Amino acid sequence: MKKLMNSPETLVADGLDGLSAAHSNIVVMAPGRKYLRRREPSRAKVALISGGGSGHEPLHVGFVGRGMLDAACPGQIFSSPTPDQIVEAAQDLAGEAGALFIVKNYAGDRMNFEMAAEIATCRNETLLVDDDVSEEETSRGVGRRGVAGTMIVEKMLGAAAEAGADLATCLRLGAKVKLRTRSIGVALSYCTLPGESQRSFALGPDEMELGVGIHGEPGRRKVPFANADAIAEQLVDTIVGDLANPKSGEALLLINGFGGSPLIELYGMYNAARRSLEGRGVRVVRSLVGNFVTSLDMVGCSITVCLLDEELARLWDSPVHTAALRW
Amino acid sequence: MKKLMNSPETLVADGLDGLSAAHSNIVVMAPGRKYLRRREPSRAKVALISGGGSGHEPLHVGFVGRGMLDAACPGQIFSSPTPDQIVEAAQDLAGEAGALFIVKNYAGDRMNFEMAAEIATCRNETLLVDDDVSEEETSRGVGRRGVAGTMIVEKMLGAAAEAGADLATCLRLGAKVKLRTRSIGVALSYCTLPGESQRSFALGPDEMELGVGIHGEPGRRKVPFANADAIAEQLVDTIVGDLANPKSGEALLLINGFGGSPLIELYGMYNAARRSLEGRGVRVVRSLVGNFVTSLDMVGCSITVCLLDEELARLWDSPVHTAALRW
Repeated sequence: MKKLMNSPETLVADGLDGLSAAHSNIVVMAPGRKYLRRREPSRAKVALISGGGSGHEPLHVGFVGRGMLDAACPGQIFSSPTPDQIVEAAQDLAGEAGALFIVKNYAGDRMNFEMAAEIATCRNETLLVDDDVSEEETSRGVGRRGVAGTMIVEKMLGAAAEAGADLATCLRLGAKVKLRTRSIGVALSYCTLPGESQRSFALGPDEMELGVGIHGEPGRRKVPFANADAIAEQLVDTIVGDLANPKSGEALLLINGFGGSPLIELYGMYNAARRSLEGRGVRVVRSLVGNFVTSLDMVGCSITVCLLDEELARLWDSPVHTAALRW
Repeated sequence: MKKLMNSPETLVADGLDGLSAAHSNIVVMAPGRKYLRRREPSRAKVALISGGGSGHEPLHVGFVGRGMLDAACPGQIFSSPTPDQIVEAAQDLAGEAGALFIVKNYAGDRMNFEMAAEIATCRNETLLVDDDVSEEETSRGVGRRGVAGTMIVEKMLGAAAEAGADLATCLRLGAKVKLRTRSIGVALSYCTLPGESQRSFALGPDEMELGVGIHGEPGRRKVPFANADAIAEQLVDTIVGDLANPKSGEALLLINGFGGSPLIELYGMYNAARRSLEGRGVRVVRSLVGNFVTSLDMVGCSITVCLLDEELARLWDSPVHTAALRW
């Protein structure tokens, strides 16, 4: 499969070099491309550090900057960063307030962040994100996956840390955001890995994958292809059924493209999901539509709902200045 | 081909409804979806009005807001808006300062904007954008196409109009931006039109289309597929060869994805294009990387170079608040 790259081996390095050069007013790449950090870090606050496999851009490297992450550790495509990357980022960026590791719930990421947490001499805590309702909690023992809700956690905690919240407050707030945030995705075609000649899994012309993961892994089940309204209804139904108290009123609705779906389709899905939510009494008061937590060129999208209260809305609205999110 | 939509006939309407609902703090859709306008228009300034076929989102609808467009008239997929859409937008938004129509250079768009310019009773002028160097000027009599450089024109003129520039000044400035801006694209796979079962044109596994247009139209020629550095070198060479005085020093570099290429590949292309430019003595001082002027799900990207001076850099840096561009 043709890709814009020099080779599968250099794609991540070239992409990271491009990103850090294009946004050199916001970020700096550490030697050896171990982590991308803010150009002007503040070691007086809690340092928010995330990371994970590449191929999900702009997550996480595009979210480094004022009001969001302090550093992101990129792995190879769909592979966890190594513990030494995480340790070095933490030692560099954490002051007395310590570091908070924001980790998507996958076995590899958990293991490497756990090792880093033990090795790092700075004070640190870890927040696991597991917003994907597609996977049954007991199915593989690892629990639910962290998907697009991760960017909401990073945005809200970023705002809190910027405003001076301490490590305990960030953890409490993270637990609150997690409790109120759920995601589920659908794929019409899987992604193609660099160097591979075809898409990683096959889907028939009248099939879609419900509950697909962000690594091209199969989801809950293959179902007959349906129109936008029917897909949105099904995804929203799953999300709302899983939220403790969805009738609490107001929500942030995120339609996240996986990388291969045109923006006009994502806005059409937003329209459908919003109507479905409002039909259930959930009022959409904040919105985000675009490709944020991607899976290379996978065709499809996920829906994320985060139930807001005054505190969370304020954190969402707080200024942010990163490569991929700015207001 | 599976798409996230209710039907090919409703995709544009559903997408526009979604966009206007998601960004209701910035924009309002006019009755009949004839045009999308700023929520809080200022009729004391020159009204910047653009439009064109849908399928290129976020262009133009995503660029309506403070510091950029006053209104955008969306046509059906890859089809020009009708003259009445443009007339109504102009009459609604133009005060005594008049309206400036920013029109991509295609026969259909030109014809409909020309008709609108004659019918509209408000004072108005038209600026044709034709930044695509891929097409020989004499090849079809219409001249070069307007592609990704259009968003640079809209951003810079938007800043000028916001600061109170009159119609003549906007025209003069538009001519200056055009003189200094060139684009060229490459496709690895063509787009798929809604309702069609396959991509609109075929490309072999070892072929790419150099100079592709943003409607999936074939470009200058099919060439053997190459790596990112070689592609960037070829595109930059064509651009620099066409600019009157590329050695004047400083440039804005825009890597524009066509919709189907992962962001990490676009940043890799940025890295390659930047090095190629700097090797020719053009220093990249402003950068933008992402999917802005798309062709549905086409795989590939375009490179745009805009030679800056103090005035253009200031206009680029001025605040902008739209759905798709914000700083």
